[in-house]
Amino acid sequence: MSAVYGGVEGGGTHSKAVLVSAEGHILAETDGPCTNHWLVGVDNCINGINDMVQRAKIKAGLDPDTPVCSLGMSLSGGEQKAAIQKLIDDMRERYPKLSQSYFITTDAIGAMATASDYGGIVVISGTGSNCKLVNPDGTQVGCGGWGHMMGDEGSAYWISHLAIKTFFDARDNLVTSPHDINYVKKAMEEYFQVSDLMGMLPHLYRIFQKSHFAGFCRKLAEGMLAGDALCQHVFTEAGKALARHIVAVLPKVHQDLFSGELGLPVLCVGSVWRSWELMKSGFAQVLSEAQAHGYSHFQKYSLLTLRQSSALGGAKMGAKNAGASLPLDYSANVNVYTNSEFPWSQKDVM
Amino acid sequence: MSAVYGGVEGGGTHSKAVLVSAEGHILAETDGPCTNHWLVGVDNCINGINDMVQRAKIKAGLDPDTPVCSLGMSLSGGEQKAAIQKLIDDMRERYPKLSQSYFITTDAIGAMATASDYGGIVVISGTGSNCKLVNPDGTQVGCGGWGHMMGDEGSAYWISHLAIKTFFDARDNLVTSPHDINYVKKAMEEYFQVSDLMGMLPHLYRIFQKSHFAGFCRKLAEGMLAGDALCQHVFTEAGKALARHIVAVLPKVHQDLFSGELGLPVLCVGSVWRSWELMKSGFAQVLSEAQAHGYSHFQKYSLLTLRQSSALGGAKMGAKNAGASLPLDYSANVNVYTNSEFPWSQKDVM
Repeated sequence: MSAVYGGVEGGGTHSKAVLVSAEGHILAETDGPCTNHWLVGVDNCINGINDMVQRAKIKAGLDPDTPVCSLGMSLSGGEQKAAIQKLIDDMRERYPKLSQSYFITTDAIGAMATASDYGGIVVISGTGSNCKLVNPDGTQVGCGGWGHMMGDEGSAYWISHLAIKTFFDARDNLVTSPHDINYVKKAMEEYFQVSDLMGMLPHLYRIFQKSHFAGFCRKLAEGMLAGDALCQHVFTEAGKALARHIVAVLPKVHQDLFSGELGLPVLCVGSVWRSWELMKSGFAQVLSEAQAHGYSHFQKYSLLTLRQSSALGGAKMGAKNAGASLPLDYSANVNVYTNSEFPWSQKDVM
Repeated sequence: MSAVYGGVEGGGTHSKAVLVSAEGHILAETDGPCTNHWLVGVDNCINGINDMVQRAKIKAGLDPDTPVCSLGMSLSGGEQKAAIQKLIDDMRERYPKLSQSYFITTDAIGAMATASDYGGIVVISGTGSNCKLVNPDGTQVGCGGWGHMMGDEGSAYWISHLAIKTFFDARDNLVTSPHDINYVKKAMEEYFQVSDLMGMLPHLYRIFQKSHFAGFCRKLAEGMLAGDALCQHVFTEAGKALARHIVAVLPKVHQDLFSGELGLPVLCVGSVWRSWELMKSGFAQVLSEAQAHGYSHFQKYSLLTLRQSSALGGAKMGAKNAGASLPLDYSANVNVYTNSEFPWSQKDVM
């Protein structure tokens, strides 16, 4: 067959695979379950990836026994070198017909590669959170991404935890809540099916599941829409927290990234950004303060969201690693919103 | 045999058992390993307790086949009713010669029962933290005790986490550290045997052990003694956090508890109190503010430490539950320090 390049986006809830021609055209896309190897284990991870890519070959009318030229994977949990090498070794051994070469990067870098070959700042806020600056010269600077025990500020987990901790502390009279706690109390009791604080202990320890705990965030978003002040508060704090990740990497941003027409590009990835309306005041406040204090280059920024799976960026990076260059139409891959106004509605944001 | 009452102190690292005569005299004491049933499981917990008490019977020259009148257990992790009932049912079934009756309370309440029959505030800071007010009428009000996912402020776990999080945030440029981070960096690398932040991830997730993580606190205490400002800072913050637990329950303190000669009795339990010298400025500051603002009754407090195992308080409560009253010499069970001066040296505090 003519050269075909594969890409994978591996998330904590669902995954995607894509096949791309040498001209950068999408030949087929498939979906699959979670392929975060920390969550489902190495076997399920590589089986899931193989299954998605093989189905995509068939969907594109290709011979499934012919390996693609390269497979570039953009994986959440794809940071540790030793773990990545083991994934690649296992895939190579178990599925020799899958691909000729393999490349794994993080979800953040894969997302950025989908949006631009020039760089920018990517801020992920899904179950967890993470931030990466990619400069035009390819150098990277990170902030966060340490998981719920040491960070995840501004993520769905963090928002859920902040609301519940505010409730616990108010009940203990340890810290006064800035707002009435009754909506959060009721929502917590319903979501976790508990009747008191003691009932939360299993959800925090014995049967703790980060994704389920983080899912409480949706109830808080509903509370905000119903006018609850504490729910508004936690999302405003999340907006601030995510913006602080951007401020953290600002000193390392190459000057050229500020000077484009859009100003500093900030790529927003993950489900929490769907609640942008709830977060934007906190987010804008922190960035305005940074603009006002000492970052003279930083006059303008734009927010970008992906219209394509970051499997596409994964495919591009996998191809590059194999010595090929995939021409992507970046303008078709992103939505762009500038900060002169905040035009996002919930519909706009994927 | 004449009436003999048993008591157990069950901790996360070690345990103690005590046998007491009807006159309140200690007949024998034995030691054992961790009996926190959340940490070692129900089987190990009740086997460990049975072993300690049976050895104590022999040590006291008693027939091990004759049950003691009652066994009162003061257990860390002894809060949830269903779990407690299962422990008691299993003990009764498996060891019919152990005791005629059983009673389980928390480590906080057992400690208070060892120190006084009049009540006070007990503040535990060991691996985790917890605070309970016991009023003269026996009513209880708690603050904290929710474990490391939702509290533990001022505990060894929390102190360790605060220092490491300060280091992570400084390296990420997310939050500026109030002091130089180099001592904490070096201590962390040595204690956890890691060479970078990424190396900490297994210690936070895959091989996380709360007691090992909390043990890093000792290195921070050493750093403080070597003059490190960040180490001093985290212990000062711990002192504030523990004092805030006391302030949280102040509104529920019965007026009589303020009016004794000692002022409000605060019973300090757990290994972190050994670092009192490092914490006292933060602790005193928060209580002074509470004294200055609105708590007119609260003019004086005293700090108490136990000279006896809280197994003794457990024995007393177990006996009471079985209808007997053990006369304890409380003055022999505690050290008392008043807040007019802070006379504690590390030696004074057990």
